[in-house]
Amino acid sequence: MKHCIFLSFFFLFCFISNNAQEKEFDTTYRPTNYALKVEKFRSFPNSKEDIIFLGNSITEYIHWNELLQLPQARNRGISGDTTFGILERLDEVTEGQPAKIFLLIGINDISRNFPDKLILRNYRKIIERIKTDSPETEIYVQTILPVNNTFTKYKNHYNKDEHILHINKELKLLAEEYNLNLIDLHPYFLDDTKRLDSAYTEEGLHLNAAGYQHWAKILKPCLN
Amino acid sequence: MKHCIFLSFFFLFCFISNNAQEKEFDTTYRPTNYALKVEKFRSFPNSKEDIIFLGNSITEYIHWNELLQLPQARNRGISGDTTFGILERLDEVTEGQPAKIFLLIGINDISRNFPDKLILRNYRKIIERIKTDSPETEIYVQTILPVNNTFTKYKNHYNKDEHILHINKELKLLAEEYNLNLIDLHPYFLDDTKRLDSAYTEEGLHLNAAGYQHWAKILKPCLN
Repeated sequence: MKHCIFLSFFFLFCFISNNAQEKEFDTTYRPTNYALKVEKFRSFPNSKEDIIFLGNSITEYIHWNELLQLPQARNRGISGDTTFGILERLDEVTEGQPAKIFLLIGINDISRNFPDKLILRNYRKIIERIKTDSPETEIYVQTILPVNNTFTKYKNHYNKDEHILHINKELKLLAEEYNLNLIDLHPYFLDDTKRLDSAYTEEGLHLNAAGYQHWAKILKPCLN
Repeated sequence: MKHCIFLSFFFLFCFISNNAQEKEFDTTYRPTNYALKVEKFRSFPNSKEDIIFLGNSITEYIHWNELLQLPQARNRGISGDTTFGILERLDEVTEGQPAKIFLLIGINDISRNFPDKLILRNYRKIIERIKTDSPETEIYVQTILPVNNTFTKYKNHYNKDEHILHINKELKLLAEEYNLNLIDLHPYFLDDTKRLDSAYTEEGLHLNAAGYQHWAKILKPCLN
């Protein structure tokens, strides 16, 4: 009887602490107009020649076809998105069996305090799902860009550099393990103080026109 | 002397009332990240084959190249933009001497209570500037879409239907006067109660995927 009571309390504790942990970060959050944006993506025709740019606002906020002069470029960025969002809408990307996917995701996960392990578990799921559902697609994993905490607009994103560095280190190992292309963007965007170079940003998180031109130069060799 | 005093007061009155009128609506307002967005547009190469979609959020919120399967489509929509913004950044559009410009602008002017006369004066300026600076460009003027006041999100935009109707009527006359193509979108998007059909919108102002597909069908004959 004593055992039963002890076990009941133990399970109750596990249940409560598990729920408490879930509440520290909300993985079900999706940005405004998320469903509407995904619905528009689904309304477009697919082609096996599509080159997909998949990610969050940093991917959304540029016209890739113009930046790269690449008619088959497809913007699949959604502002505020996380690895959970990518998993949720990944079928829209893989169903067209695109030629290439350029993936850049994770900074919003970090800003929302998702544990690095969870982010990396999701990366693994994303990669495995693409490999299974669209085996001919070439995957390009891009390392997470640095931020710059001398700006003030995105307080939840700054001062988490050790998480960015850890995830980027692990992304390189993942790319090796799964035999993927790895584009190590991060060092290209650093200034002398190891922050996102203010030549490329107006607020320490997103890129300005010069930042996107810089990115385009790094990508060019992968597009021939 | 009496005349001088009278005239001084008269000019002072004109000055004050003119300033007061200016303050009823702020024509210098530009949305967040406006300069940043224009800077990105300026960073892209131009081509005489470009087909420009010029306008506000309704134009910005769709990937035109995918919707229309038109590689030369260029998105020059900026959320929140007005006829004043278009005039300010029009040189970025005309400098490339594009093949076509599809213009849809004015609902934010109306939401900000700009007088119809002022909006139409700006339309005239936009048309004349394009004709002067890029004389080979085919101009397509699109009538302003209806809104739907059974939704609640965009209170400043609803219940100004008579302004939409008046401007649209005048746009048709302008198109005739300047010998432009006129695409009368407005009636295609109405429901039986003369509102923006809720099949095409989630909040009474912007379009959903079905709305854009509907628009695409209307545009198709102009793109061959």
